[in-house]
Amino acid sequence: MNLVELSSRIQPLDQHAMQEARARQAILTKPQGSLGRLEELSVQIAGITGQSIPILKGKEVVVMAGDHGVTCEGVSAYPQEVTPQMVANFLTGGAAINVLARHVGAKVLIVDMGVACDMPAHPDLLVRKVAYGTANIAAGPAMTRAQAEQALLAGARLAGEEIARGIDIFATGDMGIGNTTPSAAIAAAVTGHLPAELAGRGTGVDDAGWNRKVNAIERALAVNKVDPSDGIGLLASLGGYEIGGLAGLILGAAANRRPVVVDGFISTAAALIASQIAPQVKAYLILAHTSQEKGHRLMMEWLGQAPLLDLRMRLGEGTGAVLAISLVEAACKILGEMATFASAGVSGKA
Amino acid sequence: MNLVELSSRIQPLDQHAMQEARARQAILTKPQGSLGRLEELSVQIAGITGQSIPILKGKEVVVMAGDHGVTCEGVSAYPQEVTPQMVANFLTGGAAINVLARHVGAKVLIVDMGVACDMPAHPDLLVRKVAYGTANIAAGPAMTRAQAEQALLAGARLAGEEIARGIDIFATGDMGIGNTTPSAAIAAAVTGHLPAELAGRGTGVDDAGWNRKVNAIERALAVNKVDPSDGIGLLASLGGYEIGGLAGLILGAAANRRPVVVDGFISTAAALIASQIAPQVKAYLILAHTSQEKGHRLMMEWLGQAPLLDLRMRLGEGTGAVLAISLVEAACKILGEMATFASAGVSGKA
Repeated sequence: MNLVELSSRIQPLDQHAMQEARARQAILTKPQGSLGRLEELSVQIAGITGQSIPILKGKEVVVMAGDHGVTCEGVSAYPQEVTPQMVANFLTGGAAINVLARHVGAKVLIVDMGVACDMPAHPDLLVRKVAYGTANIAAGPAMTRAQAEQALLAGARLAGEEIARGIDIFATGDMGIGNTTPSAAIAAAVTGHLPAELAGRGTGVDDAGWNRKVNAIERALAVNKVDPSDGIGLLASLGGYEIGGLAGLILGAAANRRPVVVDGFISTAAALIASQIAPQVKAYLILAHTSQEKGHRLMMEWLGQAPLLDLRMRLGEGTGAVLAISLVEAACKILGEMATFASAGVSGKA
Repeated sequence: MNLVELSSRIQPLDQHAMQEARARQAILTKPQGSLGRLEELSVQIAGITGQSIPILKGKEVVVMAGDHGVTCEGVSAYPQEVTPQMVANFLTGGAAINVLARHVGAKVLIVDMGVACDMPAHPDLLVRKVAYGTANIAAGPAMTRAQAEQALLAGARLAGEEIARGIDIFATGDMGIGNTTPSAAIAAAVTGHLPAELAGRGTGVDDAGWNRKVNAIERALAVNKVDPSDGIGLLASLGGYEIGGLAGLILGAAANRRPVVVDGFISTAAALIASQIAPQVKAYLILAHTSQEKGHRLMMEWLGQAPLLDLRMRLGEGTGAVLAISLVEAACKILGEMATFASAGVSGKA
């Protein structure tokens, strides 16, 4: 499989299934439209899956981890060693994503896409490492074009494997100290907004750190002559391995007609890259929440979609996405489990 | 128990438990504050329950039903017979609230507070009927002051009974054809906004129906000389039995240090009445979502609180509240189940 073949397999939504879902929503025992976005979500999922009454059983958040050479520019509040420490925390179940995934009944899959050290082997850790962290984007490309393709295809292949194991819906998650910097750089290249409009505080840098971050992004955009319409080149120049893996996962899920719930700032950067590679993938995305990270709204506007939640979160890991997966599941259950006016013997409008 | 005693039992939040919850949030493996409203919710629940790491096991949505004399003014899109038909639908598990409550693991308790006919006996139907529907508020008071007190105390007593059976958190829900009209009237009396600013389309009235609705509310406010600071009088003049029952449930839950997740327009009208009877009850409320029903935002502003969700819903029944209960539960699990930086061996800020 190459990326051209993968993109060509992403089809438009199934209009017939969507029409059937809409027709069913109209006869359920509630005023039409009164469940708002839950009704719209159920129609979207029908279109994605091609099932007029979709059932989502297997839910999974895929948390991809990678390190970033740009951390040497002093752009993050936490040291790089926190990336493998947090991966270990994921594997023992103590991180926020573990707690929230358990709460909504979603599996957690941890993938090492590019952590800067070797992680101890663990039965629940998938190693798809492309390299030991990216190069410093402020000084040159993050990775080679071949490495970018490798990351994308690894993510796409993983989607296929997990779907074969029964996954019906994905949430995206990320871990990588410094990764709001490449994400903001990708957002700047794609949306045309300025680095200072897009760069936020990440895990909590101070003013001096934020200035270094904006400056690093400006240099990254200057030194890498990015063609924003070239998704692979964008990833190679500015990306991260976890961002590439997530972009591939999004493409692979869509090629297999599975919905993807996109988490916050880093996951949305991955969605931007996926959308530049295959614009029709946008229809398969559900934006989970508005991140507090500056610039996230501008990225969502570019995608032309509105998020489900706004809980002032900015953690990443997929924490917003798993909360949103529960809403998507609720939407499908409404469509599948509610009585109709006729079956319940309830009168219609006077 | 009378309402004065009940009110006096509602204590301020436990500052010590809140301080402990805040201190624990600061050492969990995430940047401080990065879970936004989930962190704030966990602190609020600690203050409500008095437990520094609160555990919410028993979850219940209490759906109270009642009919409204004001329907004779042509204010609703659906006929009054739909109230008992929907109660029957709740009891067979086919309504939206049943689907969503199952989804989040909450019990559904259906209470007949004032349906205009006798409902067939059913093991899951609680009958606390005060009367067979209210009188037409456009022509005079909805009920007597004694009936208002009866509805409030029935709700408060029910809260105590359910807490004794293991309920840790309540969601409020309503069913009652025509009940956006008394709710808007209560909102107008309390907030001082005009009926036309508060009255929405309910289950979907047309322009003529909406004009009749606004006119009915204006006459209700004129004919009933309401003192908005008198919560019991407010309910007697403009209320509904389900609204009174829910206001009582809110007071009873708070008197027993249990949080209440308030659903949309009708439930918020109940919260306004509860707040006029015992202003300190506001600290025990969690506003679930912004209803699409016009005026709901103004009611929430008066309460001085921001809702958790905005999914453009306007169904009632507690549908928004049970979705929000899941977020509250998630917030408490974050506090109770996440690893600390020390226990997980994760480095702090650089």
